[in-house]
This record gives sequence, C-alpha cells and structure tokens, in this order.
Amino acid sequence: MAPVTAPAGPPATPGGPAAPAGAEMHALVERLYPLCRSITGDGVRATLDIVGEHLPLRVHEVPTGTPVLDWTVPQEWNIRDAYVADPAGRRVVDFAASSLHVLGYSVPVAATMPLSELREHLHTLPEHPKWVPYRTSYYKPDWGFCLAQETLDALPEGPYEVRIDSTLADGHLTYAEHVVPGQVEDEVLVSCHVCHPALANDNMAGVAVAVFLAKELAERRPYHTYRFVFAPGTIGAITWLARNAERIDRVKHGLVLACAGDRGPVTYKRSRRGDAGIDRAVRHVLAASGRPHRVVDFTPYGYDERQYCSPGFDLGVGSLTRTPYAGYPEYHTSADDPSFVSPEALADTLAVCREAFAVLDRDRRYVNLSPYGEPQLGRRGLYDAVGGRSDTKQAQMAMLWVLSLSDGEHGLLDVAERSGLPFGTVADAADALAAAGLIKAA
Amino acid sequence: MAPVTAPAGPPATPGGPAAPAGAEMHALVERLYPLCRSITGDGVRATLDIVGEHLPLRVHEVPTGTPVLDWTVPQEWNIRDAYVADPAGRRVVDFAASSLHVLGYSVPVAATMPLSELREHLHTLPEHPKWVPYRTSYYKPDWGFCLAQETLDALPEGPYEVRIDSTLADGHLTYAEHVVPGQVEDEVLVSCHVCHPALANDNMAGVAVAVFLAKELAERRPYHTYRFVFAPGTIGAITWLARNAERIDRVKHGLVLACAGDRGPVTYKRSRRGDAGIDRAVRHVLAASGRPHRVVDFTPYGYDERQYCSPGFDLGVGSLTRTPYAGYPEYHTSADDPSFVSPEALADTLAVCREAFAVLDRDRRYVNLSPYGEPQLGRRGLYDAVGGRSDTKQAQMAMLWVLSLSDGEHGLLDVAERSGLPFGTVADAADALAAAGLIKAA
Amino acid sequence: MAPVTAPAGPPATPGGPAAPAGAEMHALVERLYPLCRSITGDGVRATLDIVGEHLPLRVHEVPTGTPVLDWTVPQEWNIRDAYVADPAGRRVVDFAASSLHVLGYSVPVAATMPLSELREHLHTLPEHPKWVPYRTSYYKPDWGFCLAQETLDALPEGPYEVRIDSTLADGHLTYAEHVVPGQVEDEVLVSCHVCHPALANDNMAGVAVAVFLAKELAERRPYHTYRFVFAPGTIGAITWLARNAERIDRVKHGLVLACAGDRGPVTYKRSRRGDAGIDRAVRHVLAASGRPHRVVDFTPYGYDERQYCSPGFDLGVGSLTRTPYAGYPEYHTSADDPSFVSPEALADTLAVCREAFAVLDRDRRYVNLSPYGEPQLGRRGLYDAVGGRSDTKQAQMAMLWVLSLSDGEHGLLDVAERSGLPFGTVADAADALAAAGLIKAA
Repeated sequence: MAPVTAPAGPPATPGGPAAPAGAEMHALVERLYPLCRSITGDGVRATLDIVGEHLPLRVHEVPTGTPVLDWTVPQEWNIRDAYVADPAGRRVVDFAASSLHVLGYSVPVAATMPLSELREHLHTLPEHPKWVPYRTSYYKPDWGFCLAQETLDALPEGPYEVRIDSTLADGHLTYAEHVVPGQVEDEVLVSCHVCHPALANDNMAGVAVAVFLAKELAERRPYHTYRFVFAPGTIGAITWLARNAERIDRVKHGLVLACAGDRGPVTYKRSRRGDAGIDRAVRHVLAASGRPHRVVDFTPYGYDERQYCSPGFDLGVGSLTRTPYAGYPEYHTSADDPSFVSPEALADTLAVCREAFAVLDRDRRYVNLSPYGEPQLGRRGLYDAVGGRSDTKQAQMAMLWVLSLSDGEHGLLDVAERSGLPFGTVADAADALAAAGLIKAA
Repeated sequence: MAPVTAPAGPPATPGGPAAPAGAEMHALVERLYPLCRSITGDGVRATLDIVGEHLPLRVHEVPTGTPVLDWTVPQEWNIRDAYVADPAGRRVVDFAASSLHVLGYSVPVAATMPLSELREHLHTLPEHPKWVPYRTSYYKPDWGFCLAQETLDALPEGPYEVRIDSTLADGHLTYAEHVVPGQVEDEVLVSCHVCHPALANDNMAGVAVAVFLAKELAERRPYHTYRFVFAPGTIGAITWLARNAERIDRVKHGLVLACAGDRGPVTYKRSRRGDAGIDRAVRHVLAASGRPHRVVDFTPYGYDERQYCSPGFDLGVGSLTRTPYAGYPEYHTSADDPSFVSPEALADTLAVCREAFAVLDRDRRYVNLSPYGEPQLGRRGLYDAVGGRSDTKQAQMAMLWVLSLSDGEHGLLDVAERSGLPFGTVADAADALAAAGLIKAA
Repeated sequence: MAPVTAPAGPPATPGGPAAPAGAEMHALVERLYPLCRSITGDGVRATLDIVGEHLPLRVHEVPTGTPVLDWTVPQEWNIRDAYVADPAGRRVVDFAASSLHVLGYSVPVAATMPLSELREHLHTLPEHPKWVPYRTSYYKPDWGFCLAQETLDALPEGPYEVRIDSTLADGHLTYAEHVVPGQVEDEVLVSCHVCHPALANDNMAGVAVAVFLAKELAERRPYHTYRFVFAPGTIGAITWLARNAERIDRVKHGLVLACAGDRGPVTYKRSRRGDAGIDRAVRHVLAASGRPHRVVDFTPYGYDERQYCSPGFDLGVGSLTRTPYAGYPEYHTSADDPSFVSPEALADTLAVCREAFAVLDRDRRYVNLSPYGEPQLGRRGLYDAVGGRSDTKQAQMAMLWVLSLSDGEHGLLDVAERSGLPFGTVADAADALAAAGLIKAA
C-alpha cells in the first residue's frame, strides 16, 4: 500500500472540549518535561506519580534479571548529580541544568583528564551547534556527556574534572496500566513510552494525550475496554507482552501514541496487517475530516508498534504521531522542549483518537431482516426519523446503504467507505433501522 | 471501483438499422408522452395498449391490498378533470393542458379558497420560472397543483375555485411482460418504469428503446430468453419480484432502462455485485466503441435496480441511461418533453443494448483440446479461415489468445478484455477453433 | 497488468567482468552470424559446433516424421548454392553473398524465365530499398529469392537463369542442451532459437548471452540446475517439450533469450502466469537497478515462450529481450547485422540475467524462531555483523524486515519488494540471522 497524502490545507480547529483540553495537556507536558527519565529508575516513577494524579494507575515493578521474551530486565539506573568542570572549576556541563547532558545509563565516574581524553565521551550536533543531543547506552557499559557544539568549541585546553554520581544496580523496571472498563472484555490498547528524559514532543505529548483520552472515555461506558500502558520503550513493551501473553488475544485494536504535539500534520502508520480495524478506522476518520494528514505503511522500525506487531503477536496496533519518528530536526535534541509542542496540536491529536475510537466502538455487522426489495421506510416514519432537515437526505441515503450492504458480510465502516458517507451518519442510520426492527446485529 | 470516464468526442453515429429506428422510437415517445400515467390507473393501461400494438404483451392486474414483499398494493388512482379557476372564472391551471399540473395521487377536492390558503397546495420551481414541476404523494393522502412560477406570480388575490375530479379506490396495479424466447431458459431481464406522466426522457424514451430492442431480438432466436417488464416504478418492480420469487434464479443478467433519449453521453451504473456479467459486457462494449461514456458504481438510489439489487435478490442488474437520474435541470419538469429527446440518442442507446446483449449471448468458456504447445493452425487452414485480408492478423491473434486462455477458467469476454481485441473478433475466432475441433465448450 | 516503464536515463555501465565478456560475446555473434541456419539442416549443426567449443553440448537428432505434440518433425532442408543470373549471365542475386537471399526451405529449382514470371518469387522491402528481407516457407512448398528493392529496380527485362541447389528430404531436426548442475534438481530453463540465418540480434545475440551465462554459472555450484536449450524456433521448442513431457515439472523458472544485443533498453515480457518467480525476480532486478527498462504482459505471440507458456504446460517462463519482437525496423532484414549489436548491450543483458538468477537462487522462505517481540540483536553482535560502516543502517533494517515477515508466508523477494531494500541486502541479512539461529528455512 502506498502512502496516502491528503491535500494540504488549514488544520482543523478542534472545537468545544478540545480547546481547554489542549491547554491542560500542554500544562501536563510542561510539568513532566524536566524529569530525568530512562528505561528504569526513579524518573519513571516520578512521571507515573504525576500521571497518577489524573488517573488511577496500577504500577508494576519487575525485578532486574527477570526473563522477558528474548530479553532480560536490566539493572536499574539512578543518577543524583553529574558535571564537567573546566580547569577554573566552573561546571561547563551540568546535569542540574538538563537531564539530557548525561549519556543515559552512564556508569559512575569520578576523574580528572585532559580535554583530548574527555572528547571521546562528549556528544554534540555539529549541524545544530546550539542544541544538546539525546544519547543513551543501555546495553553497553559506557559513560558520557551531551552538550552543544558551541559549548564544546569554547572549552580551553587543560585538566577537566568529570563526575557522574550514578548507580547501576539490581532493582526494578517500572511501568503502569490504567483500564477504562467497557461493555465487553475485548480491549483497545493505548501505549506510550515514558523513558525519554527532557524531551517534550517525544513523548510527554503522547502521555498527555493518553491521559486526557482516558479521562474522556471514563465519562461514558465505552463498548470496548480501553487499556492504557505507560512503559519504557522497547524493554517496557516487551516486559508487558511477556507478562500478558495469555490474555493478549483480548487486544483487538491498539494505538501507539508518540510525537503527538508538534505542529506538523497527523501521520498514521498502519499495523503490520495493513487492514486491521484500527487501520481502517483511523484512515476513514482522517479522510472524512479533511485534515491534512498522511497514512503510511508499516515498517519494523519506529516505536513500540515494533513489538506489538512482531509476527508472533501480529496485533492490530498502529502508530499515531504528528511528524513521525526522526522526521524533524528537533527530534532527540534539546530543541524538543515544551515550546515545540502546541496546545492546538495536542487537542487535534486527541480529537483524531476520539473519533477513531468512536468508529471502533460503533462498528458492527448487521443483517437486513427485510432483504427482498426495499422495505417501506415511509410507513415506519423513517424518512424523517433521523437528523434535522438539512441532514435528511444524507440520513435517508445512509439507511438505504445500510439496508443494501447488511448481508452479514459488511460492517458499518464498510458501508461508510463504500458510500462515502461519514461513519457517524451511517451508524445513526443503523440505530434507527435496528430500532424499527429492520436489521439486527449479525 | 472508481467511475470510468472515456475521453470526450463526437458520439458514434449509429449506422444502418439504427437511424430509421431512431425516428420510429421518437414517434413512439411523442405518442406516449401526453398520457396521464401514475403507479396505478387507466393511464398505465393506455400506455400498455400502445406498447401492445408493437409487441404482444401479457398484462397483469394485481388487486389493491395484495401483500407484495414488505409493501401492499395501494388503491388505484384515476382522474378525469382538475383545475384552478381564478376569481374571474378562468382556468389558470388546467389538467387538460398537461397531466403534470396535478399532484400525482391527489385526493378529490371541490372548494373555493383564498390564494393564501391555496398556496400551500401549489408547487413551483422558482429557479426555472417557466417550467412546471412533477410531484406526487403516493402514500400520504394529499392534493395539490403544479404550475410555473410565472403563472403563480401573475395570480391576483381573491377567491379561487379548486376542483380535482379524481378517484382513489380499490382497484388494481397494472404491469406487463413480453418474452422473446431464447435457446436456453436463462433469462435477461429488461425493465422500464411506466409510471411517470407527461415526461419524455423519463421514461417513455426507455420504453421506446425496450420496444425496439424486443422487436430486433425477435428477428433471431437469441441464446438467452429476454424478458421485458413494463411496470410502475418501485411498487411495480416489487410486485413483479413478489410474484416471481420462485423463478427469479433464471434471471442471469438484467438492465433497467431509463432516461434513454437525451443528448448526453451514455452512463452505465453497475449492479450491486459490481462485476456481474452485465457489468463486464456493457463496460467492454462502451470502452471498445470509443463512445464518450461513463461507468459508475452501484448506489442504492435511482430506478428499479434498487429493487432487483436488494441484498436478498442481488441480481446482476445494472442501469443504462444517458444523463443519469436527477442529473439534468429538465429532470422531473415540463421541460422533459419530446424535444428534449433525440432520435440519434435513442438509436445510440439501442445500439449499446444490442452490442452488450450480443456479448452476453456469445460469451462462453472453452477448453483447449490441444493445450500442450500451440496446435499447428496452418495445416488446418486456420491462418486464413477467419476474416478478410486486413483483418487476418487480428483474427490470428484472436485465435492464439483463445487457445492460450481456454483453460476452463476464462470466458471469451475475459479473452477480449485481456487481449484488447474486440469481443466479436474473439468470438469469431472461437467459432473457427471449435469448428476445427481445437476447443470445446467447457 | 499494465506495462511498467522506468524513467529514461543512461544505461547502466556494467563493470568488472561484463566489459570483457561483452567483447567476447560480440566476437561470437560475428563468427556465428553468416551461417545459413534454418529449422533443420547443416547450418544448425555448424552453429552448435561453434557453441560446443565454449560449452559441452548434448546434441539431439530427431528423425523426420516423428510426431511431436500436435506437430510432426518436417523434412530436413540443406542448400549448397542458389542464384539469379541476369541475361548477361551475371549473378545479380547470390546465396554466396548472404544466406538471406534464399527463401528459407525453398524447393530446388533450375529454370530460365522472363523477369515478369520471376517477380512472383522475389521478395523486397520497398520502404527500405537497400535492405534484404528474411522470408521462409516452412510448411508450404515454395521457392523464392529475397533482395534489395534497389537491386530489383535495376534489373533489365530478359530471360533470367534461376537456380536453387537445395535438398528437402527425410533427415533430422537438430537441437542441443547444456546443463549446469545445481544443488537441487529443480531447473531453470534458458532457451534460445537457433534457426535464423544471417541475422545478428535475432538471435545470435541471444545465443552468445546464453553461452556466457552458462560459463559464469559453471564457475560456482548454483542452487538451481540450469538447463540451456539451443533449438530451432517453434518446432524445436515443441520437439523439446514433447521429448521432456515427463520431467517438465522440474522446470520451476525459465527465460527465453532473444534480440539480446541491440542498443534499446531491456524489455521483459511476463510469463502467462504473470506473477511467476521469474516475473517477480526480473521485475525486482530491473526496478532496483535504475536501468531504463520495460516490463510488459504476456501475449501468445513472440518467441518460444508461446510454447512453454501454452496452457497445458503453463510454465513460469518469461522472455528477455532488448527491443522486443518486431519492434525495430531492422528486424528480419539484412540490417540486423553484427554492427546492429553492441558489446555493451550484450554485457548489460548478461548482467540482468545474472542478477535475476541470483534472486531465484537465493529466494527462500524462513520462519522467525523468536517471533514474540524483537529478538535482542545487540547481544548477538548483529548490529555490526553485516556490511561496512555506510551499509550498517540498511543491513539492520534488512534484519528487522526479515524478522518481521519471516512467518512462513513471505519469501526474501517479498521482503525486498515490501521493504524497498535491494534483494542482496535482504538475503545477506537472512544469512546473518540464520547463522545466529534466529530464523530457519521454512
């Protein structure tokens, strides 16, 4: 399947509840942003504590050394302080200013060394001399500092004091779940990675959208059960999968939320299956909305859809972002700060999720109980039963389409796609027809 | 399936038999045009009497109250006179001038009322002030008049005499059938609605094409049996389906003919199946002909294909029109008069039907009896057996294609589509190969 | 399937071994070119003798009258001399100058006749007055001469001596095979027609490419067994098929090589199946290479793919040419001489075959042995195991793609097509994963 790109145009301005939610989500991003997260450790716990102020969370602590699928839960990393001091004793690189300054999972170090030796442990972005890169070394013991190229260029020769006060020791990997109970046990999974330190779009924006989505869903009793997973990337999703293998079949649909707040258009990346329910629902919502957007095929690279879509699980899990993985210069740098994320974009991402989940929750197959010829809608009052005056014709067309395709093979999303009508109009028509006894759930 | 539009160009000028048939069909349209048809009543009977001068008809009378599928045959409506007389006693709206002036199925009325009260029963077309609209109220008892906006604007205040001398009483619904016997009992259904009063293109043009098609088919013994149904729209098709449910499986293909005479390009609307034999045959004929044309997907709105394609029947019935349903401003107005219909367009619609039915009648699956390597055509004289000198190469290619694809899976229309050769050339090649014993019917 | 045309551009310059091979192939074309080949006779034997200097051949002699499928092996034709002498006794048309001058399979003749009578046996190309056409009459006894229109125009009236010293008698049809043994008995068939007299591109170019392909394959032990068939067109392929019917199932893929040396872009004609392994392999190689090229659908006309793809056999055999069958003015004329063929084009055709066969030989289905989540590649050293520094990212992506799609349903060519990665990179990744025990052959 080729990428589908909609014609560019002004982004939809989300109305009503979205605008205030946008501001609240942005405030949550700002609050979560500075914490020093990694794939384990107290930064993840502090993040989940704040999320827990919004949603009741079930927090899981999985001990170091636990086998999870092909992997093993690593040692826990914590850090208290880290700096590079120049020959004059000034802290020229300081963890206290930003958690990005330390290579993630750096082993402890306390030494003095010349600049030439130190350079081998310094990471910069020469093409963006003012930005600090984000770097980690989870599985190969190492230490290092990340800094702006400008800072590096200004360093004089001489002995530097280097100190990383970190601990790498047996402990736990931490992740959390929140469940919104539905009418059925079939689940929709929403998964966000919580392992990146001072980066806003990647992925405190995804966390914020997930939090507000869960709050909205809790206001009604949705059809599906919605399970939100906040876990470190890769090892966290793998740990969740390992611990939930026996109940994984309940997951009918899913969405990995990442990079959810930049000002670019929405991008949906299909599941490995390519035509899973979530793929069709999001595609329909995006196409029908007129939003500028992109729909791209699955690749086995990106965020935790890699794990959920691995061939043994092959879940119907897609990935929703705005500008996708590695698609913007600020990606994995200090420029991905809260100003890079906009309340409007957060609200728009939230709206896409809300609309797509409404499709998943209402999509059904029906059987036309009067399939020979058209049933006489007029004597049942159905020519006026749905919608206001201006919507009447569309509502009638939707009823005719539902009757035509309700042969047990087509669902309401099929009807919406084939008719070109909005899913909501089709689903309303189906409700009216079902109430009149003309169709029944297949 | 997306609509397929051919490049615009001059319409094919139908040669030979079409031109005189065009004039004869137009004369028939003119003669049928003024009758006051409705879904029941003497106008339908008078229409069928005239059709019966051309074709032997079997006329069916179905009593009021008969249950037909989800519907019931309604009361019969007849009308003798109707008018609105102004304060000076002049008939300003008069049924005698055009049967369009009365709302179809108007209940009787004899009253005098001020213009303000009368207005609620008057229907006009403000955007086309000289045209009289066509309106009905079959299933909700009502009365009314249709008139030009200009006429309405000229009416003075004052008391108006209103009279509709109609009868709405138990009686019958009338429809007719004509059958052209074929070599097999498998049927092709051709259906036209005969319920619209003084409208020419919609649908006396369809009736005229059907009549001349039936006459042509009767001159040879076609492969399929052709059944022509002349019935009121919706309730007539539903009644026919209800009374023929047990033999409906004989209907292998079908065509609803409507709006068959305006000067626009031919439009074919696919059956609900989308790839039924009739869909493929008409598409091939239109594409191969070079005619400007459109092929559009099924929608559950339009003419009686709605009933034939309802999911319980799901027949392979498409709809052939020129400008389709509601696609021209004259649609359902007094401007759809005989001058709106042209003899050339009628002849061209007839030609499309003739060519498409030739495909349906000749399409067969064959099995190559010499499938290992090419058979030696030369020693059987087959390199010259078909066609004249200039057609020889195309005829030879057609033989090679028929041999290549005659594996029991592909029919001759498949061969024509894959090879890009005209269906007739392919069918002639198959006849030659069958005569030489190289292929046999699968 | 529609033809696929790549954007025009400079032809790939084949590096390394191709350039010297191009010159050697061209020398072979020049040496084979003048021989008087036909569908039987000593010209074919002399051609196979020269091929036999490069490759060990198994030569088959099949007696006249042998039934082969729907055909019969014809009498053998040999010719020693032929000429037309003008009234002055000068040989104005002389077989000694070019074997094209005699109508192939001419019966013997020795006569004197006026020019008017002789004209009925003369074949020219009025639109190319300097060129001599190539004509035959295999199955209808006839005689004739082919000459330039210019030559004909200059002939004076008067008696002409006509002599064709040919023999048409019981004998044999000759063809040859060369086999490169593989690791498995499954075969790839490479077939070239060897029946055309003094024509270079059609088909000594195909023969030369086949010879050098066989030599290259013999330098390694390929996965498939490669069978090269050098046989007269049509009757030769039919004879080979007739004599190998019981082992034809071993042929898994095949390629008919013809017109392999002109300066036009490569054209691949799909097998009748349309999606056979060879169709996909050649398409991938051509698309990935950036060469200008065309991929066209099967038609039952052309070279011996007509026989191999006849519906009884329906082999996965495509046809590789440069400018295809009858697609250039020089086709079947004296202008198709060695200057019409270029060493670079021959080398390029050879490269396409080499690359496509590499795909066929390496394409496998694997099963991911660690399908739940991603396996931890890092601890197995696989993030650096394949390729040099600049290729590392592509190699890693290839590993992720192979893991993702190795579900027993997809082969490596599927992976290459879906990922957009070169087949070789994907196959190397699969080798690395298999060596690490992460996948195994399905």
